[in-house]
Amino acid sequence: MEPKKKLINSVDSCVDEALCGLVRASGGLSLLRGHRVVLRADLDNLKGKVALLSGGGSGHEPAHGGYLGAGMLSAAVAGGVFASPPPASILAAILCLHHAGASGVLLIVKNYTGDRLNFGLAAEQARNHGVLVDMVIVAEDCAFDQPSKAGRRGLCGTIFIHKLAGALAEEGCPLDQIVSKVTEVLKGIGTLGVSLSPCSVPGCLPSFDLPPGDMELGLGEGGWKDGGEREKVASADELVKTMIDHITNPDSQSHLPLKSGDSVVVCVNNLGALSCLEMAVVTGAAIICLENRGVVVARVMSGSFMTSLEMAGVSLTLMRADQETLRLFDAKTSAPAWPNLSSVCVSGRSYITDPQAVSPRPHADTHSEGPLSPVMRKALERVCSTLLEKQEELNSLDRAAGDGDCGNTHAQAAKAIREWLQDHVVPDCPGQLLSVLAGLVQEKMGGSSGALYSLFLTAAAARVTEGQNIAAAWARALCLDALCPAVDELMKLTTAPPVGQMAVLQNAVQKASSGAESTRNLTAMAGRASYIAAERVTLPDPGAMAVAAILRAVLESLEGQK
Amino acid sequence: MEPKKKLINSVDSCVDEALCGLVRASGGLSLLRGHRVVLRADLDNLKGKVALLSGGGSGHEPAHGGYLGAGMLSAAVAGGVFASPPPASILAAILCLHHAGASGVLLIVKNYTGDRLNFGLAAEQARNHGVLVDMVIVAEDCAFDQPSKAGRRGLCGTIFIHKLAGALAEEGCPLDQIVSKVTEVLKGIGTLGVSLSPCSVPGCLPSFDLPPGDMELGLGEGGWKDGGEREKVASADELVKTMIDHITNPDSQSHLPLKSGDSVVVCVNNLGALSCLEMAVVTGAAIICLENRGVVVARVMSGSFMTSLEMAGVSLTLMRADQETLRLFDAKTSAPAWPNLSSVCVSGRSYITDPQAVSPRPHADTHSEGPLSPVMRKALERVCSTLLEKQEELNSLDRAAGDGDCGNTHAQAAKAIREWLQDHVVPDCPGQLLSVLAGLVQEKMGGSSGALYSLFLTAAAARVTEGQNIAAAWARALCLDALCPAVDELMKLTTAPPVGQMAVLQNAVQKASSGAESTRNLTAMAGRASYIAAERVTLPDPGAMAVAAILRAVLESLEGQK
Repeated sequence: MEPKKKLINSVDSCVDEALCGLVRASGGLSLLRGHRVVLRADLDNLKGKVALLSGGGSGHEPAHGGYLGAGMLSAAVAGGVFASPPPASILAAILCLHHAGASGVLLIVKNYTGDRLNFGLAAEQARNHGVLVDMVIVAEDCAFDQPSKAGRRGLCGTIFIHKLAGALAEEGCPLDQIVSKVTEVLKGIGTLGVSLSPCSVPGCLPSFDLPPGDMELGLGEGGWKDGGEREKVASADELVKTMIDHITNPDSQSHLPLKSGDSVVVCVNNLGALSCLEMAVVTGAAIICLENRGVVVARVMSGSFMTSLEMAGVSLTLMRADQETLRLFDAKTSAPAWPNLSSVCVSGRSYITDPQAVSPRPHADTHSEGPLSPVMRKALERVCSTLLEKQEELNSLDRAAGDGDCGNTHAQAAKAIREWLQDHVVPDCPGQLLSVLAGLVQEKMGGSSGALYSLFLTAAAARVTEGQNIAAAWARALCLDALCPAVDELMKLTTAPPVGQMAVLQNAVQKASSGAESTRNLTAMAGRASYIAAERVTLPDPGAMAVAAILRAVLESLEGQK
Repeated sequence: MEPKKKLINSVDSCVDEALCGLVRASGGLSLLRGHRVVLRADLDNLKGKVALLSGGGSGHEPAHGGYLGAGMLSAAVAGGVFASPPPASILAAILCLHHAGASGVLLIVKNYTGDRLNFGLAAEQARNHGVLVDMVIVAEDCAFDQPSKAGRRGLCGTIFIHKLAGALAEEGCPLDQIVSKVTEVLKGIGTLGVSLSPCSVPGCLPSFDLPPGDMELGLGEGGWKDGGEREKVASADELVKTMIDHITNPDSQSHLPLKSGDSVVVCVNNLGALSCLEMAVVTGAAIICLENRGVVVARVMSGSFMTSLEMAGVSLTLMRADQETLRLFDAKTSAPAWPNLSSVCVSGRSYITDPQAVSPRPHADTHSEGPLSPVMRKALERVCSTLLEKQEELNSLDRAAGDGDCGNTHAQAAKAIREWLQDHVVPDCPGQLLSVLAGLVQEKMGGSSGALYSLFLTAAAARVTEGQNIAAAWARALCLDALCPAVDELMKLTTAPPVGQMAVLQNAVQKASSGAESTRNLTAMAGRASYIAAERVTLPDPGAMAVAAILRAVLESLEGQK
């Protein structure tokens, strides 16, 4: 097994190059020559204020270099991937802040053995150089009911401390007061992570195995497994409830006490490779779950704040927050990785806007049933069930040249039509029905297909309403490229005797199927398939297949009624 | 093959729940009832100004809902995953902005067939309602040398248009002027993407196959393949050069003209699952590559701006930017997905700070060689090569209970020692040598191991220097848990006759190996292994294995010199 391919230049250089990339891209940062240390470029602004230094193993970007700026950290020291930085670099950073005129230096350290040792050694040495140094250890992991002697790990809650201590330092608060304030805040922070996939250190194999479909609760941000339970991936709602139950479970020694009426700041942190869509679903679930317990959600941040390389997973951090904590949380910062948050309380805010009344659609429920109504209802029901049955088949065809969602789009329309059928009469006039369908499709179907069906149905509705010969109007309305042979066949309806009409329909359905099949050899002129070399498109067009299936469903429905 | 497990509640509900999550988490957004439409909560602020509306298929989060706020979009309409939204929802959004008092509505639409159709239909209908509407189509993809009739796709460059049009609208610029300004800017934008993995629509199989280690250039943000070449994953530098060469290649009809002296804004966009570490490496490479061509990099944004679900890949967008464009780019916005950027020009800025001079270390090169020097040099060389050979073996042991980096950390130390050996004499006094090694390890090794070796070597140095009996001091210095049996053996050196010393060493190395082996049964009390249930730790401790290997290397070196 080969280590995973990564977009880097070399295993040895990737940490230094990543630091350089961060610093180059940001106007406010600089690198300390000879060290893996990121500094605020405006060190002069530290004069007389407490400087804040954090750091730790790399691989957790944007932590910690991304949190440098006015109102947050002054410097960050990076180790190798998942390895604590050497004390010499930590000391160099401290001395640099000291010489810039900082009144003292606060080290914000995550509770890992290596970080405690290395930051601790550097702090001792800095004191020997006459620097006023203090250290806070962040240990807010809730994974373990009975933490080992090493204690709870420091996870994403660390960036809350960066923010609050940073705001205090910016205000000119002295070192001892910052330490006592954040020590108090730390008691009200808890984090729990869950992983759906491992990550791998550059040049190394994945840190652990996790079969697809499994997840591991309680996982840290260092890409390593713990004693946590492995389970099948749950729904987002269930998972969030399990996590918040565990974080707040009084039977666990590492729980966060949280009661109804408490106010919290929530951080939903992407461990690396979870899609932003899933992140948003989890974020919504977390807000609702907390509100259901009577907890006031004051602020929410959702994004990639302390990752574990490309691990697919998420961590939830809760911080109990009084007005003073919120004031510090809301304070301005220039740190590049801090998100653009609003200072509005999340809970209790109205977030639904009512749409403007639009002039009612012409087909609004003024239809009357007639002899054709049950026939057309049956045909529509058949079309809907056919499209829902063929959903995956159409998706599969569409994956060859499109987005793989052709079946989904048609299913969307089928569901909308089914819903409409439940509480509406089917008008006896086909033109009215087509108009209703045009409206439904325009409102609910989406995609290019939705637009094309909508245009087609609207045009068809007009022709059927105007035309004397309904059958011919139907045929003319169906004039679409791959369907032309079927339409030629249908045109025979204009002259066929009633007893021959079913045979014409059967032939037309047959022609529609072979027309759809023949799209294998077409070159797409629009839509996503048009970007793909014709030689690579070897399957028929899913949209044409869908139309053929619709026609067949109508035919079968009519045949069933004979 | 099962569809990939995702952190959602259901395929049908995930888009609506994601929109709800976004809106709930952000203080400044609301949802339009009955539609997948996100609105600014402060619609009152649109009075008399141009409102901006964008949208498209979901799965590209934070686009477009994350770009709503003062100075950016007023509303965003979402379709299903990778599907264009229905015109009825687009129309409802336009009418809502119109009724809020907007002087006009600008639709910012990516160039996809479905979006053009659906936004176009809605625009026509809105005009029928008396709304002043205009539309700009973003089509900045550089993938195809000869674009099809459908034209170039709209990709991440769209958010530059959101930003610039948003700043103009906020200033009160009228609709026609905004349209003409952004139409001009659009000529100077180009994007190219590359993918290392596919993504999958919720409930569906992956959209295409891409073997591990392969990448596909020119891929869009919709999870579908094009005619682009597949290649082996290149280094970050090579890849970025290939991409920028292609974007600016005058032989391509869809190229971006760019010459030395031009000023650009760069967006390095994570397509979903690329690690932030890799993103930073790619970002640095892009800045350097552009500067090497004489291009001035004015601003850089790097992060997840327009994703394709969990696709591992990156897109590069370049925008030629004059002072006026930069002014609009830098303007304030409250949009939650807009990053916290500084307004400093990236190119030409000094970004290296020199460290403060620290008082020189006591062991600084005042050593003299002696008879022991070549022996110790040989032993050190042997230790270094052993540690480098065993790098992957130690990593592998460490993956069972730690970060998988034990070998890397030791290799780091080995490289530092080798480098030092190149231009320093090895002092004849073992205490001095130990002191040098302590310094090197403290400066370069990192990790918990670095701290522990540093403490150990410092202590050992002191004992060896003080002690009369060097052999016994060495033995005492080695007193570490799993190594105790080896130390007991080494203590015999205090009494062994010179001819028996090699046998004692051989026995000690043997004991060290079996001691390291016996760590299988130890319960870790600190470090990451301490978080893992003892039953799950079945391999020996990699740190103890490393020490045993070091001792064996010393022995072998001494044996070789007999």
